[in-house]
Amino acid sequence: MENNSKQLYTAYCDLMQKAADINYASAVLGWDQEVYMPPKGADARGRQLSTLAGQAHEVLTSDKLEQLLKELSISEDLTDTEMSNVRLSLEDFEKNKKLSPAFVEELSKQTSECFNAWIEARKKNDFSVFAPSLAKMIELKRKQAVLYGYEVHPYDALLDEYEKGATVAMLDPVFAGIREQLPPILDKIKTAKQVDNSFFHQNFPKQKQWDFSIEVLKKMGFDFEAGRQDYSEHPFTTSFAATDVRITTRVDEDNYTSMLWSCIHEGGHALYEQGLPEDQYGLPLGSPVSLGIHESQSRFWENCIGRGFDFWKFFYPQLQKQFPEQLGNVTLDAFYKAANRVAPSLIRTEADEVTYHFHVMIRYEIEKALMDGSLSAQDLPARWNEMYYKYLGIKPADDKTGVLQDVHWSHGSFGYFPTYTLGSFYAAQFFNQAQQDIKDLNAHVANGEFKELLLWLREKVHKHGRRYASEELCERITGKKLDTSFFIRYIQAKYKEIYGV
Amino acid sequence: MENNSKQLYTAYCDLMQKAADINYASAVLGWDQEVYMPPKGADARGRQLSTLAGQAHEVLTSDKLEQLLKELSISEDLTDTEMSNVRLSLEDFEKNKKLSPAFVEELSKQTSECFNAWIEARKKNDFSVFAPSLAKMIELKRKQAVLYGYEVHPYDALLDEYEKGATVAMLDPVFAGIREQLPPILDKIKTAKQVDNSFFHQNFPKQKQWDFSIEVLKKMGFDFEAGRQDYSEHPFTTSFAATDVRITTRVDEDNYTSMLWSCIHEGGHALYEQGLPEDQYGLPLGSPVSLGIHESQSRFWENCIGRGFDFWKFFYPQLQKQFPEQLGNVTLDAFYKAANRVAPSLIRTEADEVTYHFHVMIRYEIEKALMDGSLSAQDLPARWNEMYYKYLGIKPADDKTGVLQDVHWSHGSFGYFPTYTLGSFYAAQFFNQAQQDIKDLNAHVANGEFKELLLWLREKVHKHGRRYASEELCERITGKKLDTSFFIRYIQAKYKEIYGV
Repeated sequence: MENNSKQLYTAYCDLMQKAADINYASAVLGWDQEVYMPPKGADARGRQLSTLAGQAHEVLTSDKLEQLLKELSISEDLTDTEMSNVRLSLEDFEKNKKLSPAFVEELSKQTSECFNAWIEARKKNDFSVFAPSLAKMIELKRKQAVLYGYEVHPYDALLDEYEKGATVAMLDPVFAGIREQLPPILDKIKTAKQVDNSFFHQNFPKQKQWDFSIEVLKKMGFDFEAGRQDYSEHPFTTSFAATDVRITTRVDEDNYTSMLWSCIHEGGHALYEQGLPEDQYGLPLGSPVSLGIHESQSRFWENCIGRGFDFWKFFYPQLQKQFPEQLGNVTLDAFYKAANRVAPSLIRTEADEVTYHFHVMIRYEIEKALMDGSLSAQDLPARWNEMYYKYLGIKPADDKTGVLQDVHWSHGSFGYFPTYTLGSFYAAQFFNQAQQDIKDLNAHVANGEFKELLLWLREKVHKHGRRYASEELCERITGKKLDTSFFIRYIQAKYKEIYGV
Repeated sequence: MENNSKQLYTAYCDLMQKAADINYASAVLGWDQEVYMPPKGADARGRQLSTLAGQAHEVLTSDKLEQLLKELSISEDLTDTEMSNVRLSLEDFEKNKKLSPAFVEELSKQTSECFNAWIEARKKNDFSVFAPSLAKMIELKRKQAVLYGYEVHPYDALLDEYEKGATVAMLDPVFAGIREQLPPILDKIKTAKQVDNSFFHQNFPKQKQWDFSIEVLKKMGFDFEAGRQDYSEHPFTTSFAATDVRITTRVDEDNYTSMLWSCIHEGGHALYEQGLPEDQYGLPLGSPVSLGIHESQSRFWENCIGRGFDFWKFFYPQLQKQFPEQLGNVTLDAFYKAANRVAPSLIRTEADEVTYHFHVMIRYEIEKALMDGSLSAQDLPARWNEMYYKYLGIKPADDKTGVLQDVHWSHGSFGYFPTYTLGSFYAAQFFNQAQQDIKDLNAHVANGEFKELLLWLREKVHKHGRRYASEELCERITGKKLDTSFFIRYIQAKYKEIYGV
């Protein structure tokens, strides 16, 4: 009996890992698509990705897997780890099973087409080039929501893909909170003495930006033997195994803020991926919990650490050395303040920690409307511009700095954006805990010592894979479920210091 | 009835193209493995490639494909193109079917392991690091030969994979010819006034080498919208579709010959891949004929064109402009002679057009012996060194410049090397024909005009895919089967001019 369970479990692992091999292969193709692929390669790449998606889906929805999961789920000879894997795989299986192979291939093909249309539209700075492809994508995602099934709102079915259990009913109050609690903070900051960050907008040569980012990533603990950094249009992190994690970045020579914190952000994602247990390759316990928790890792590093005074106490002298002409006359204090300058702006990825959440809230409301059918692709730019004006008091001059700025919708990633805000909130709560758990954390950071912090993250978050769901993990780490007051207090404290408000 | 054939043919194309998607995906993973992959990613990549190989093999040996091929092969409603595809696919099917999925996955896994061992061994300059992995690979290849079946020599079964119909019985006389006909030419050259090529061994900065190679590739007609060039340890060309063809190169800053002609060589391969008919994606008529013909394209460009006087009439002034310090005082005539300097040397890829074939002949004899079991992996370095001394009068000082120099065995590519020599012979025969078919070909080349030549190659070779087998293709182009006397005459004429012998 025990022997039989072992055999079944091994057979289950083989199937899961075969599917993972195919999905990771897709990730390699997707990475190349955004980093190195020549333009004419797009069509063939689209069909290749679509075929791989179909092949993986076939394995993950196979009768063989179902049979194994059902037998294993009533076995009494499994370890805790094995039981967790089986339980989570069974949940995934039931979800996967709701999509037909044909639908999965169609979605994958549309994703490639839509991504290429987005690239083209950005090049031409013209949303109308993207609109037809996006409309088809929206249609597919609405269909997907129906296939998954939902109780209240079609968007719920998609949100659940990125953050298990997240729903409109849960997120509406979160974003209502943003609309209520952040404007007073923002108003106070607006009336205070403004911070100068004009020195970021000088010429910072590409190669030097690159070299400095590599040094920062190394210090953070990113293992370059198990990963690398490349250029892409839109920064992202992807993984082909815990032992091969790829970061990408973009460089604007005339705006250093475009790259600097984006590298630290992606570095946070990458450390999570590198910290997943290798021996759980392809299994739930070798996979990240959710995008919200993933984003908590990137934002922890980008904001709580990478925009902190202590971090720059250590790194700023090195940065000045790299860019003596540009930064020689800028004090650490001025640099720190500039790094945390708050001002409504058009580009989400370059927004400060306060206004950022308006960017997300706008996307959240738009996605909700696209998914319940009250907004169509063609009316998107108008709605976008209207909301930016309403909440941030500014309007994009063109599509590139407006509705075309994010890659997500071209990937069909509806329901992804809210995890950015959840991530910030988790990050603030984890950071509060880390400061209590790690003696002299601030001093470590100020000395460029991140080993203990990384170890803490490895122990508390990374090594568990999907063993605990987001809220449960949060409770295990901090003793509390997600509590947005940590973020509000973090913001209040930080900006009180910087703006004196 | 006709309708039914159309449906069957479409179903056949779907299956073939699905397998092609997976195989091209493997090619992307293989490319990344040699170009960008961080070292710790190797194990996961190995298993991913192995799974993909298994998935493709499954499709290509499926009952469904067999059924379709059998029905289509007796259909009378197919076009010529469709019939060719079906006939060739049926031949391939019968061959593929001889290998079990488990064997294919094992071979693929061993290939990744063996490749990594080779990289490691090269780094350590120590064959013994590579030997155990190579021994396993040899064992697998001998097993593969048995599975394929052969009439006379186990090596025949492997040769056939790269050059359909090639056997030891066919190749023994070719290589015997090399041992007979080339030494007299070589001896004459040895007694003549030697050519100086010492200027190649100055410092040529990497980026400038790179930039010049890009210009040459562009002129040749390589479409950078449908391909790119990257760095790797060992130069190669790979394709993910006719619309996405990747070249790699290596650079030695202290030896410009290491890169210059290797780029032109890979460019020749790449032009062939880019010239395959797009609408035959994944089908035999969208695939190259054989490695011998593939190599005819690379050698045509590298040697017949790229080491010709006319080619450098056009390019040399530009090269001098790039490297005024290094080449300012070197005349075109001296450069041309140096580009064709004949001297026994250790590294195959850097060998001249005469001694090159000794390098191949040595590998051919060694592979034969490895495959019939008369030589073992551990005795390989001794045999290698002995043969180099016997035929070229030199001995490698270490493994890196000896038995570890080629990537092929680590890939399990036994039977591949002979296609290099076949390629040179085909190239000489095609070149002779091109000079007759294209008015003023020499003048075109001397003006940096390659359009007409590329068009000729497209029409004569590229666009046919596998429609004609190697020998048949050769006969259609030149009116004759492969005739080695073209190569001998080409060599004699060239070196008479250069060495006055």
